[in-house]
Amino acid sequence: MNIHALFKLSYGMYVVSSKEKDVFNGQIANTVFQVTSEPPTIAVSINKKNLTHQFIQKSNVFTISILERDVPMEFIGRFGFRSGKEIEKFEGIDYKLGVTGAPVVIQNCLGYLECKVTGNIDVGTHTVFIGKVAEAEVIKDGEPMTYAYYHQVKNGRSPKNAPTYIKETVAK
Amino acid sequence: MNIHALFKLSYGMYVVSSKEKDVFNGQIANTVFQVTSEPPTIAVSINKKNLTHQFIQKSNVFTISILERDVPMEFIGRFGFRSGKEIEKFEGIDYKLGVTGAPVVIQNCLGYLECKVTGNIDVGTHTVFIGKVAEAEVIKDGEPMTYAYYHQVKNGRSPKNAPTYIKETVAK
Repeated sequence: MNIHALFKLSYGMYVVSSKEKDVFNGQIANTVFQVTSEPPTIAVSINKKNLTHQFIQKSNVFTISILERDVPMEFIGRFGFRSGKEIEKFEGIDYKLGVTGAPVVIQNCLGYLECKVTGNIDVGTHTVFIGKVAEAEVIKDGEPMTYAYYHQVKNGRSPKNAPTYIKETVAK
Repeated sequence: MNIHALFKLSYGMYVVSSKEKDVFNGQIANTVFQVTSEPPTIAVSINKKNLTHQFIQKSNVFTISILERDVPMEFIGRFGFRSGKEIEKFEGIDYKLGVTGAPVVIQNCLGYLECKVTGNIDVGTHTVFIGKVAEAEVIKDGEPMTYAYYHQVKNGRSPKNAPTYIKETVAK
């Protein structure tokens, strides 16, 4: 088996956010995709260890903000490599409250989706949440950040809790 | 709601294949992602009307062949816009039999994954199948075909049964 074949799968990059009561959290995820068009429905894979996972389970809502290609690495670092257990992720960030009551990151994003959880499947270390799109908006034109661009052009890394994490000794 | 936000999600493009006894079928899909890294596990969303859906349900195996960016449009047309109920999709195609017994498309592909179904979730018009990776190989170096490249550069369309289908009057 050559696990490098997995590196050829293509993804975008997103901030997935949720809430618990009046506390917000968000994290970077690449594993977001549309699963049906009628009604528009989204699937996202989230690590059970992440605070966002706990919040989605409790509130049954999540939002997806679609990162633009020019997003600064510091911004990805804040949402992707720091835990909401340690820092207040939304402090100083341009965001708004969505119709679901969860935060929607606006800064460095092309658009967003707000979803209400309609199902989930336990896949071991992660849960795949299925969410019906309750709201969707385009913020601006532009190219989305892709996982390939992040790794190849920006020399970005993946945190250990990512579905697509590969040990550094194996990864390019 | 501005459904155009969904167009900003990024995907690759793949041939998803399966079998029923000694009959093979395959179809184009963009909705493929890795959901956990240990063990490597894949999710794919397949329309219930498609023959490949029926085959995956019966055999509990599927393969993912990762299309290269230079794949001819005729090749995508064969797997994406014709039904296996009408044509023998693998006739004249360079493929091999995988360890799961399902066919693996080699032609115009960078690599492949073979998966055994470990779970699924009904999402209305589609089923999201979860599959543990049983085999993975890199065929050659190169850039993968992406959904954005297919639409923007190659002027490709989406068939009606795709999770990301948008009526032509709405789509760019």
